[in-house]
Amino acid sequence: MLRTHTCGELRLDHVGQTVTLTGWVQRTRDAGGISWIVLRDRYGLTQLALEEGVESAEVREQARNLGREFVLSVTGKVAERYSKNDKLPTGDIEIRVEKLEVLNPAKLPPFLIEDETDGGDDLRMKYRYLDLRRTPVRQNLMLRHRLAQAVRRYLDGQEFIEVETPVLIKSTPEGARDFVVPSRMNPGEFYALPQSPQTFKQLLMVSGFDRYFQIVKCFRDEDLRADRQPEFTQIDCEMAFVEQEDILNTFEGLVQYLFQEVKGIDIGTLPRMTYADAMRQYGNDKPDTRFDMRFVELNDVVKGQGFPVFDSAELVVGINAITCAAYTRKQIDELTDFVKKPQVGATGLVYARVEADGNVKSSVDKFYSQEELQKWSAAMGANPGDLLLLLAGPIDKTRKALSELRLEMGQRLGLRHKDTFSPLWVVDFPLLEYLEEEGRYFAMHHPFTSPKPEDMHLLNNPDTIGQVRANAYDMVINGVEVGGGSIRIHDRAVQAQMFSLLGFSDEEAKAQFGFLLDAFEYGAPPHGGIAFGFDRLCSLFGGADSIRDFIAFPKNNSGRDVMIDSPSTISDAQLKELSIETKVVEKK
Amino acid sequence: MLRTHTCGELRLDHVGQTVTLTGWVQRTRDAGGISWIVLRDRYGLTQLALEEGVESAEVREQARNLGREFVLSVTGKVAERYSKNDKLPTGDIEIRVEKLEVLNPAKLPPFLIEDETDGGDDLRMKYRYLDLRRTPVRQNLMLRHRLAQAVRRYLDGQEFIEVETPVLIKSTPEGARDFVVPSRMNPGEFYALPQSPQTFKQLLMVSGFDRYFQIVKCFRDEDLRADRQPEFTQIDCEMAFVEQEDILNTFEGLVQYLFQEVKGIDIGTLPRMTYADAMRQYGNDKPDTRFDMRFVELNDVVKGQGFPVFDSAELVVGINAITCAAYTRKQIDELTDFVKKPQVGATGLVYARVEADGNVKSSVDKFYSQEELQKWSAAMGANPGDLLLLLAGPIDKTRKALSELRLEMGQRLGLRHKDTFSPLWVVDFPLLEYLEEEGRYFAMHHPFTSPKPEDMHLLNNPDTIGQVRANAYDMVINGVEVGGGSIRIHDRAVQAQMFSLLGFSDEEAKAQFGFLLDAFEYGAPPHGGIAFGFDRLCSLFGGADSIRDFIAFPKNNSGRDVMIDSPSTISDAQLKELSIETKVVEKK
Repeated sequence: MLRTHTCGELRLDHVGQTVTLTGWVQRTRDAGGISWIVLRDRYGLTQLALEEGVESAEVREQARNLGREFVLSVTGKVAERYSKNDKLPTGDIEIRVEKLEVLNPAKLPPFLIEDETDGGDDLRMKYRYLDLRRTPVRQNLMLRHRLAQAVRRYLDGQEFIEVETPVLIKSTPEGARDFVVPSRMNPGEFYALPQSPQTFKQLLMVSGFDRYFQIVKCFRDEDLRADRQPEFTQIDCEMAFVEQEDILNTFEGLVQYLFQEVKGIDIGTLPRMTYADAMRQYGNDKPDTRFDMRFVELNDVVKGQGFPVFDSAELVVGINAITCAAYTRKQIDELTDFVKKPQVGATGLVYARVEADGNVKSSVDKFYSQEELQKWSAAMGANPGDLLLLLAGPIDKTRKALSELRLEMGQRLGLRHKDTFSPLWVVDFPLLEYLEEEGRYFAMHHPFTSPKPEDMHLLNNPDTIGQVRANAYDMVINGVEVGGGSIRIHDRAVQAQMFSLLGFSDEEAKAQFGFLLDAFEYGAPPHGGIAFGFDRLCSLFGGADSIRDFIAFPKNNSGRDVMIDSPSTISDAQLKELSIETKVVEKK
Repeated sequence: MLRTHTCGELRLDHVGQTVTLTGWVQRTRDAGGISWIVLRDRYGLTQLALEEGVESAEVREQARNLGREFVLSVTGKVAERYSKNDKLPTGDIEIRVEKLEVLNPAKLPPFLIEDETDGGDDLRMKYRYLDLRRTPVRQNLMLRHRLAQAVRRYLDGQEFIEVETPVLIKSTPEGARDFVVPSRMNPGEFYALPQSPQTFKQLLMVSGFDRYFQIVKCFRDEDLRADRQPEFTQIDCEMAFVEQEDILNTFEGLVQYLFQEVKGIDIGTLPRMTYADAMRQYGNDKPDTRFDMRFVELNDVVKGQGFPVFDSAELVVGINAITCAAYTRKQIDELTDFVKKPQVGATGLVYARVEADGNVKSSVDKFYSQEELQKWSAAMGANPGDLLLLLAGPIDKTRKALSELRLEMGQRLGLRHKDTFSPLWVVDFPLLEYLEEEGRYFAMHHPFTSPKPEDMHLLNNPDTIGQVRANAYDMVINGVEVGGGSIRIHDRAVQAQMFSLLGFSDEEAKAQFGFLLDAFEYGAPPHGGIAFGFDRLCSLFGGADSIRDFIAFPKNNSGRDVMIDSPSTISDAQLKELSIETKVVEKK
């Protein structure tokens, strides 16, 4: 190695040793006849010192000509510092420089390479290799590495085998939009990039692999919202000869292990909540349970007092914003504006303050007597000082809006700590959901999910089909769905029925999934699995909201990598070889 | 779990316990009033027994109706066997079946699910999920898993960080043909799938990641020879602040660790051989050193005796096929036919037998006296009983042909044992090679490889440019290049010079690799790395010639996955969204 030590390892023990360090110039300073250089590498920072009359004039001259981010090799003796820096692990020592070599000079970076940088998003993406020099960003990727290693250690210990499934597969009409790859050797035909290795992992179960996992890139050609990437990484798992309980226990164990190993936190046993309860109590199938503030349904309490909004509503439901009775008019107006935002979708907000003396004052006092309002307060378990927030309207829409308001209040009240982790399982998802705009049922999880045996009889009746529950489950942490899975169908007839319910003709089902239907005839074991969003899991562990900083080279919202300037045009020769032509109707 | 134990774990200790096993029917047998079923899962085989008058008639009837590959759940007591099978870890016991449930029936498989199958290649590929049930195939993939885990353990222990680099990148003209992906959001533009993460890992070094690795899928759209796959897996590594010696030591350590951990073999220190020596002594830059049989150059020995073939040849070179003097005329003719094959390329073979009395009898006796032939024998260190095989012609062609003949003789003599491992480093590769058909120099490794500093002066002269050696190295085991790498260029000017030598204009270099050239201006450290072909490494560890059986779902030589029937056509709507049209000139 070009160095004897890293910039993170020298201590008082090393004083007197001659060492060679390599790294980047973090900063330089000259004062009172001494030049200081802070040298940085992945492992830490070390101070270099050159004193007038002590270190050679020639080396001192070299040192004075250094700029930020120059790459150096420095040789010298480790010395105890006069003034120690106890914030730095190497803060007790410095290197008295005897020899200094510039391994590579550097232009002035376009933004500060510091924990807090002055670079905007676009600039940092263009010079991603410089942004990655910043300690917080590098630490995110090191956390990701540690998590991946821990995942593999745990699953290997549980007899899971990591199997690589193909990246060049086949386009299927179900699910999100595929990225496709023209085949040169099969003109006019295309591969697709996998949205998940779903069918392959099921085939591995048919093959008797028993326990499979893979940390694997997946791809979706979707319009990119702020926190989506066209390529993302899953921890993909499948087990044979299991029931739902086995999957929940195994992967609860995984997540417990990860928190213990990587964060030193015992997260304990994961509570379980049915989808129905999650929707009723939190208006959300991924409830943030770091704080309580559960929904209280108030139809029985508020109806029949002549307030038309409540009387005509399918659902009146509220939350108790504890300690918020003192909210000002302005704050209440903010909340009203919040719930009326199109993405929240409520038409108005009813509130009631529980005053110090226990009296309740509401925004609809003209319809409700104090006696009636006391019933609200009682139903919602309110105490003096609390603020009750009520929404009314159609069930689904109102729950969704109140869920948003609940999260907003949790945020305002500081109840959503980044270093608190509240995981749970949400179970018993519906098998199918009806999409009005498409006029048909869609699989809520995916078409391979098994209905609960006790609900199978509901499948054959158009009136009850929507009530069929699936053996499907999500792991939710802090309001984020980190993983989801199901027990799969392993019976050809049931799988064929499912494709038919989803609108596939027999021919279509065979053309797309014939290999899977065939496989089910050659001895398919009962099986099930789960997939975790690894990028999301990393950002959760890192206490961040965005996945982008946990991906080394992310793409922007137009799917572009602005650093390498991709995608780009390709040559006519390439197009011809691939038997395709571009046909751009209108350039965006 | 639906089972209490696996099919591989029951022993005499368990006798008397009631257990539940799940698995596949391997075979059934009825004799003397007893039905036997062998049940299989990933972990092993266990015998089930049902005896007339002992086990219930009803369950016995069920058992008689089972077919191969039915999926069962079986409950019963563990009993000691009358006749034990010491070839089977569970061979001391059997299960006396009390309850039998068919979890899924199976059609008769299209080929035998046994270690030796009667299924041809095509059938096994179509039903790959059944082929994967066979123990040897499953064991290959389990070996692959163990190797991957060991690679990660070793590199993690050496402070390497696994970083995922993007799969959707940019097409570049250098190297093999790219697979491309049309971008819907950027009409008319394409991503490319990476042939390797080369530039990204170099950028990670510029970022200060110091030590990077990744086990990563790579893609090449090349015409597929027998043992190539369009998607393959690399162990991709890079280190900063290193010289060649550091890389060789670090990855010699990796391979030593893998052999120790996975095969229990100490492979010792790897010898090093220059490219020039490898070509001179083995005619091959990936010599199979499991056996010696080195080339002996004979120009000085054989020329000037009036044999026109030798006198006019640029090179006369031979090998000593020890103990082969007794080869029959027919065997010699076979060898002559072998060297004349187009893929070997020699025009003829000269041989000489060293007889028991030390006399040498050659096929060119009319040109060479016994005295002259004794010089051959001496030069080649031959003993009585040896056979000398000589080729003559242009240097490169003749070396290549003799290399093929040497490998053939090694094969015939049984010197290429699958369980012997002879690794070495080949170093000092040429930087550039001139391709006549293209009329220009190409990078022998890749355009980012650094010339040896002491050869830099040869770069500026067209006459000496081909002599420039690179800081490039391959790891070779048993004649297979398992890994290769180089110390990279980290100086912008040298990199720009290299692009220019390779025929890039300044504009082209900037358009394709501007981000890398820019990065080199912001403080790039000296760095280098290596990539191992992981599929190849697995097949080597597994003692196999082909990589295909170490890939779960491989493609055939037309790049097709015949199981899922991919690639396939996509819908007009998909094409339109992607702003492309297919234009098939002639259907193959």
